[in-house]
Amino acid sequence: MKVSIRQISELSGFSPATVSNVLNNKKGVNKDTAELILKIARESGYISENRISSIKLVIFKRSGLVVADTPFFSSLIEGVEKESGLHGFETTVCNLDKKSPDFKMRLEQALGDHNSGILLLATELGEEDVKLFRRAIAPVVVLDSWFDTLSFDTVLINNTDSVCGAVDYLIRKGHRNIGYLSSAIPIKNFYYRGVGFRRAHSRHGLRPNADYAVRLTPTMDGAYHDMLAYLKTSPKLPTAYFADNDIIAFGAMKALQESGVRIPEDVSIVGFDDMPFCSVTSPTLTTIRVFKQEMGCMAVRRLLEKMKSKSKVCSKIQICTEFVERESVRKLPEE
Amino acid sequence: MKVSIRQISELSGFSPATVSNVLNNKKGVNKDTAELILKIARESGYISENRISSIKLVIFKRSGLVVADTPFFSSLIEGVEKESGLHGFETTVCNLDKKSPDFKMRLEQALGDHNSGILLLATELGEEDVKLFRRAIAPVVVLDSWFDTLSFDTVLINNTDSVCGAVDYLIRKGHRNIGYLSSAIPIKNFYYRGVGFRRAHSRHGLRPNADYAVRLTPTMDGAYHDMLAYLKTSPKLPTAYFADNDIIAFGAMKALQESGVRIPEDVSIVGFDDMPFCSVTSPTLTTIRVFKQEMGCMAVRRLLEKMKSKSKVCSKIQICTEFVERESVRKLPEE
Repeated sequence: MKVSIRQISELSGFSPATVSNVLNNKKGVNKDTAELILKIARESGYISENRISSIKLVIFKRSGLVVADTPFFSSLIEGVEKESGLHGFETTVCNLDKKSPDFKMRLEQALGDHNSGILLLATELGEEDVKLFRRAIAPVVVLDSWFDTLSFDTVLINNTDSVCGAVDYLIRKGHRNIGYLSSAIPIKNFYYRGVGFRRAHSRHGLRPNADYAVRLTPTMDGAYHDMLAYLKTSPKLPTAYFADNDIIAFGAMKALQESGVRIPEDVSIVGFDDMPFCSVTSPTLTTIRVFKQEMGCMAVRRLLEKMKSKSKVCSKIQICTEFVERESVRKLPEE
Repeated sequence: MKVSIRQISELSGFSPATVSNVLNNKKGVNKDTAELILKIARESGYISENRISSIKLVIFKRSGLVVADTPFFSSLIEGVEKESGLHGFETTVCNLDKKSPDFKMRLEQALGDHNSGILLLATELGEEDVKLFRRAIAPVVVLDSWFDTLSFDTVLINNTDSVCGAVDYLIRKGHRNIGYLSSAIPIKNFYYRGVGFRRAHSRHGLRPNADYAVRLTPTMDGAYHDMLAYLKTSPKLPTAYFADNDIIAFGAMKALQESGVRIPEDVSIVGFDDMPFCSVTSPTLTTIRVFKQEMGCMAVRRLLEKMKSKSKVCSKIQICTEFVERESVRKLPEE
């Protein structure tokens, strides 16, 4: 026999209005209250034990400059959708734009939803943005950004080890003066790439030279114009660059080549992501391949585990990359 | 109709003796050959599609000093056994001791076994030890140690972020002179704890003082005697110590107290692991709780995924910890 909202109200001690708000995903209910009511509703058979029926991918944009419409994110989403489907779940997409007038309303909707497990695409987010999801009623897995002061299950790229390996490759090719083409918009992934850049140097007893560091807008056009302006100041160039991502590398390459700098004869360059254009640029771009689909799959699997288990232990899952050697790096002659 | 070894020999082009060696787990067969023969044996129905029926936990000791008979490893093994059982797999344990005369023979047996997925407990291992498992025919997941130059699926403790958080706690308690009680036997986990120690300092614009670093044997008795000898030299003491693990912390505490140093009044101390004794020492030890069972579970789940999927993408899964505040840290008065 099915119990009523009134009975759940009596069992839980909360008013029928509160119970109804929780069961209908209305916002404004305290998280602990909601959890208790849902627990009682489940135990009494009002809702089925495992009510979560879909995976909600929350695409949360701050600047929108990094999470643009690139193949990177479409592959990630494809991975999510595929893996969800395999397990009989639908994937719903929820765009959250901090600058949009309905941001608050949409955020509360996502936080109050107890029918979907949440995958939060946090590429562009800061700690304070991700923190909001502590209030989510459904289990959450954070995707593509790691915050060491928050405890969220997270799936992301193995940034540090990957860049450490790529810079180690440059050093083994004889490069000692390696510049960093960094994104002018700092995101966590880039921060951890910087850690790998420095770690590779320190393993070889080297120190990165800050004079060779250039900050560029992380769009193809932006990086191109910024690099062009930088080159007009006639700076001393390193023999090689590591770029925070392929888009920055590509914009910089164009500016370098237009300024008469040959790649890789004068300056070598390594990117990150292995975007499809890397194999058609001239020269083709040596880079780090990211397994975007796998990231999506792993995040869904972790979310499903969290939905099944009661364990509160979090994990930081880093998907390893593959170094792709192409034409943009030159081996320096031995001194 | 069941095919014969002779037919597999004909299909594969290898001699019946080689085919028989592979199918009976005899050592000495090249990995590619073995994989090809197994593939044909599976396709022709000689062996069933998914022949792996057990999880083999390889406990590989080098010094034996770190992987001792502590509750740490028994909980880890319990987690492995439980999760394997849930999925209908047996857990078999294989001890490998580098110093034992039958080491080579046992190693080859483990590498050639195609009936078990392998969990390699790599706590004490170096790169060259783990590298041997590239030749394993069965899928491998490495447990409790990360090697950034090898590509193995790995499950380990989130060392760096955990220690960074603990040292950040000491700094927020007013400590500026923090010493490092490090293990005299360097293992990877400790290396990454050191990274976190330095990261926390640098976030606060501080530099660790090498004068306060002490290297101790990572056994309770060893740490005690080493610390006692160190204190006899009347060194200047920091206001707080971080120790690579609880055993080292405990040995050092005993030596400090016997030498008249009060904890936490004179010197504070933080350990790592949350061994059962932490809550009964005097004072009780502030430390970092490691979820050992979860580590074992996650490793089994990852291994099962690898057995099912053909994806070659590796992941580095770090299990997050919990900071456990007890009595061994004092808040320094504001200056």
